[in-house]
Amino acid sequence: MSPVQFAWKLVVVARSDLRLSAGKTAVQVAHAAVSCALASKKRDPDTFREWYDEGQRKVVVKVPNLRALYELKAQAEDLGLVTSLIQDAGLTEIPAGTVTVLGIGPAKERDIDRVTGNLSLL
Amino acid sequence: MSPVQFAWKLVVVARSDLRLSAGKTAVQVAHAAVSCALASKKRDPDTFREWYDEGQRKVVVKVPNLRALYELKAQAEDLGLVTSLIQDAGLTEIPAGTVTVLGIGPAKERDIDRVTGNLSLL
Repeated sequence: MSPVQFAWKLVVVARSDLRLSAGKTAVQVAHAAVSCALASKKRDPDTFREWYDEGQRKVVVKVPNLRALYELKAQAEDLGLVTSLIQDAGLTEIPAGTVTVLGIGPAKERDIDRVTGNLSLL
Repeated sequence: MSPVQFAWKLVVVARSDLRLSAGKTAVQVAHAAVSCALASKKRDPDTFREWYDEGQRKVVVKVPNLRALYELKAQAEDLGLVTSLIQDAGLTEIPAGTVTVLGIGPAKERDIDRVTGNLSLL
């Protein structure tokens, strides 16, 4: 079985220092994915459509802290990529307003990799 | 700090028997959330808007196996709720085509709770 080749992806970067549960992490990643998908659909429908029709590939990677998340956000915006920074409503596990994850894209894999290509999978 | 009250939610039901990693789980949940959000936006824009503007609440719960996932899908469809069943592309961890999660909603909390109200959080 050879792996499917994707040209497009959406990346969500998660803070590993928050030590969230699997369920809580999934909710934060889903917030970012929905926000990025909707923003992309509005601002750049062609990119959105290419990504979605290809199978809406998503990848979740990690950074050690909040500062790293902000640095990636600045880099992604410099490249003109869609970003979405998620703050938790704070109902469980962490204080309200905690910045948890950053969504980037969807975009061409080679463009997103300029920002997140060196990060480890969550 | 009193918890925020939500009237709307989107629920993603995950199979606990697949024992996916936190990252893999997050990707599957995000697939379901994006698919349900887009389907809802198209079929029932008012519901979508209410849910999104309220803060796009999401909850991740679990079932023990695939059969339970299909039973919930049937129940949700009987109530007229949006559903999205996700099959993994199978690049890692599990075989291609494995059904991993079921998204339900967004919808009024009381309607979704008729289907998923008894399930435990992931």
